[in-house]
Amino acid sequence: MSPVDSLASFRLAAGFTSAGVASGLKPSGNLDLALVVSKEPCTAAGVFTKNRVKAAPVVYDQQILAKNATNIRAVVANAGCANACTGEQGMRNARRMGELAANALKCSTEQVLVLSTGVIGKQLDMAKIERGVTEAAAHLAPDGARPAACAILTTDTKAKIAGAQIALGSAHANIQGFAKGSGMIHPWMATMLGVITTDVVISPELLRHALLRAVGKSFNRLSVDGDMSTNDTVLALASGASGARVDTANLERFVEALTGVCISLAKQIARDGEGASKLIEIVVTGAPDEAQAHRMADAIACSPLVKTAVHGNDPNWGRILAAAGYSGAEFDPERLSLWFGDDQGAIQIVSRGQPNSFDVRQASDLLRRDPVVIRLALGMGSGQATVWTCDLSAAYIQINSDYTT
Amino acid sequence: MSPVDSLASFRLAAGFTSAGVASGLKPSGNLDLALVVSKEPCTAAGVFTKNRVKAAPVVYDQQILAKNATNIRAVVANAGCANACTGEQGMRNARRMGELAANALKCSTEQVLVLSTGVIGKQLDMAKIERGVTEAAAHLAPDGARPAACAILTTDTKAKIAGAQIALGSAHANIQGFAKGSGMIHPWMATMLGVITTDVVISPELLRHALLRAVGKSFNRLSVDGDMSTNDTVLALASGASGARVDTANLERFVEALTGVCISLAKQIARDGEGASKLIEIVVTGAPDEAQAHRMADAIACSPLVKTAVHGNDPNWGRILAAAGYSGAEFDPERLSLWFGDDQGAIQIVSRGQPNSFDVRQASDLLRRDPVVIRLALGMGSGQATVWTCDLSAAYIQINSDYTT
Repeated sequence: MSPVDSLASFRLAAGFTSAGVASGLKPSGNLDLALVVSKEPCTAAGVFTKNRVKAAPVVYDQQILAKNATNIRAVVANAGCANACTGEQGMRNARRMGELAANALKCSTEQVLVLSTGVIGKQLDMAKIERGVTEAAAHLAPDGARPAACAILTTDTKAKIAGAQIALGSAHANIQGFAKGSGMIHPWMATMLGVITTDVVISPELLRHALLRAVGKSFNRLSVDGDMSTNDTVLALASGASGARVDTANLERFVEALTGVCISLAKQIARDGEGASKLIEIVVTGAPDEAQAHRMADAIACSPLVKTAVHGNDPNWGRILAAAGYSGAEFDPERLSLWFGDDQGAIQIVSRGQPNSFDVRQASDLLRRDPVVIRLALGMGSGQATVWTCDLSAAYIQINSDYTT
Repeated sequence: MSPVDSLASFRLAAGFTSAGVASGLKPSGNLDLALVVSKEPCTAAGVFTKNRVKAAPVVYDQQILAKNATNIRAVVANAGCANACTGEQGMRNARRMGELAANALKCSTEQVLVLSTGVIGKQLDMAKIERGVTEAAAHLAPDGARPAACAILTTDTKAKIAGAQIALGSAHANIQGFAKGSGMIHPWMATMLGVITTDVVISPELLRHALLRAVGKSFNRLSVDGDMSTNDTVLALASGASGARVDTANLERFVEALTGVCISLAKQIARDGEGASKLIEIVVTGAPDEAQAHRMADAIACSPLVKTAVHGNDPNWGRILAAAGYSGAEFDPERLSLWFGDDQGAIQIVSRGQPNSFDVRQASDLLRRDPVVIRLALGMGSGQATVWTCDLSAAYIQINSDYTT
C-alpha cells in the first residue's frame, strides 16, 4: 500500500478527472463545489447515514444507485448547505443539481450522484450551484483532485486524502479517496462525506460488499461527538481503467486495501475533530465477540469524561472502567486489564480487575502522545475492535456554540 | 406539596436526626461526612446504578437491604473518595464504615447503609472516616440536615434539597430529601446520590415500588453528560413517626408526592451540572409509547451539539431533528413538530415536517431563558416523556480536564 504523500501530488484513480471551485456558497469565498467525473460509465456503490432524518441528496442517491449502479459518470458535491430538512423543494434541488452536472457533461441525469454538506434547514442557492457546476466542468483535470478534496470541507482544518496500490494478477490497480468531517457525526454541519475512486473492474455487488466491509472497520469505528449526521455518505466509484479485475478469488485483497484507505481517512477525520488536539485509539480485545468489543470501545470513545481527561493528560482510568461498565458489553470486571500506551511503551493500569500502583507522571506522558492508545483486554473470548476518537476541548464548545448565528 | 424554602430551614422528616462534619477526606477541608439516623428502626428501599462496574458501597447496601429492609437505623455517607474499583479491600472498608457508625449509635452493623462519592480507584482513608463518624454521631440534631446535605457534595456548587407534605387520612406526613450530583453521571466523581426521608408507615415492598416509580420519572430522566456512574444510589427511609399509613388505597398519592420531591432534586442537579449556565427541559409528546418518547428526549438531551447550541443561544434546530433521527425512536419526520419555549411564550420552528420561517432573534431569546424548554410533538400516539439536562460550556471541559492531577 502506498499512502498519499502530499496533498499537492494527490490524484484520483485512472479514468477519473475532477475539479473544485468557489461558487459562493461559503461566505468565506473558499472552494465549495467539487466535481468528480469518470471518462467512461463506472460502477458505483454507496453507504449512507442510518439517521431517520435523511438529507435530500441521501434519498436521491439511494434512488439513483438502486437503478443505475453500473452506469455512473459523475459525483457533484457542495459544502456550505446540507440540503437537509428542506422538504419537497430540497428533493427538487438535489435532482436539479445532478441535472446541471449532466447537462455540462452531456450525460444523463440518472448518471450523476449528488452530495451536500453544511447548514441544515436552508435551501440550496441554485444560481450559485449552476455557476459552480459550469465552472467546475470547464476545469476538469487529473490534478483537480486537490481542489475537489478541499471543496467539500466545512469546519475541517485539513483535507483528508488516502490511497493504496494493489497488484491483482499481472495488473496494478489504485484506490484513491478523499473525505471530510470534523466530527464523524455533526448533524448541523451534516458532515461525514467520502468519495473513493478506483480503477479496478468490479461488479456492483462486489463493490458494495467491499465498501460495506471497509466502512464497517473504519468510518463506523469513528466517533467525534456521538452525534450522527443526516448526510453521512461514502461513495465508491470503479472506472475499470486499470484493467485489473476483482472477482471472488482476489476479493479479500481488494477489501483489505480499500479498508486501509478508509481507515486512513477515518483517522484523519478523528485527528481533525472539532477542537481536537490529538487522536485517541481505543483497542478492546478478548471480548465474547466483535460486536461486544465494538460496543465497549464505542462507549469509551463517546464518553465526554474520558475525552476531557485525555485532553488534560489526566490518567483518570476510573472513567474508562465506568464507561466500559455502562456500555452494555458483556464482561467480568474481575478479568479486565487496562493499559495506556502501545508497543512502543505502555503502562498497565489494571491487572485482571486489580488496580496497579503506577507513576502518574509517566502515565500522563503517555496521554501527551498522538495518538493516545488505550487498550483493554477482557479475557472472555477472541472478539476485538478498534475505535478512533479525539480529545474534547474548550475549542469544541466555542466552535459549536455559534455555528449559525 | 410544600417545597423547601431555604437551606437554612431544611429539616428531615420526623423521626430522623442528622449531622455533617469535615473529616479531612476533602483536601479543601469542607464538610465531607454525613450521618442520617432514625430514632427507631425504619423501613428502607434503594435504587442503584446499573453499571457493571459497581462501587463497594453499592454492592454492600444491596446485600444489607436484601436481608434487613425493615430494620435500618442509619446512613453514613462520605464525599472525597468513591470507594469504587477498590477490590476486596474496598468491600472490607465499606463494611467497616458501617460498623463504625453502628458502634457509635449502639446498633447492629446490619442496620447501617453506606454511601461514598468522589475519586475512583483510591482506598478510603479509614482513620479519617473513623474520626468523622465519631464526631458526626456526637452532633446529631434535627437541624443537622443542612450540613448533611452539604457534606455529600463534590463538584456541585449548591446543596440540593426538596420536600413535600401530604395528607393521608387524618394524619399529615412529610417527605424530605437531599441529593448530590453535578453530572447525573460522572463515573470518576461517582456521582449521583440521594437520601429521601419520610415519616410515613409503609411496607418495604410498597416503599420500593414507590421509589422505583419516582426515580423512573426523575433521576432516570436526567442527563448531564451521558456518563453513568459506578456509585449512583438513591435511598428512601421511612420512620413511621407521623403515624400516617401508606397502603395500596392511597399509594398513588404517596408516589405522586415522592415523585415531586425526586423531580425537584433531579432538576436541581441538572441546573447545577458541571459548567452549566441553565436548565434544559426536553418534552416529547405524541410518541407511540412512553419508552419511545423517553428514548428520543434522551438522545436530544445527550447531544453535545444541541447542548452547545443552547449554550450559545443559537436556535440550531437541525441538530435537534438529527438527534431525534438517530435516537432509534420510531417516528415519521413528516409528522414531527418542534417548538422552542413553553406556555409563557413559544415559537413553532417545524410544523409537521415543514420548517417555518421564524425570527432568529426571538428564538435566540427563548434560549436565554432558564429553563430552556424544547418541545417535540410526533403525532403518532400518546406516549410522552420529559428529560432534564443542562447546556455544555467550556467550563465543563476545564472542570473535567484535571479533576485528579
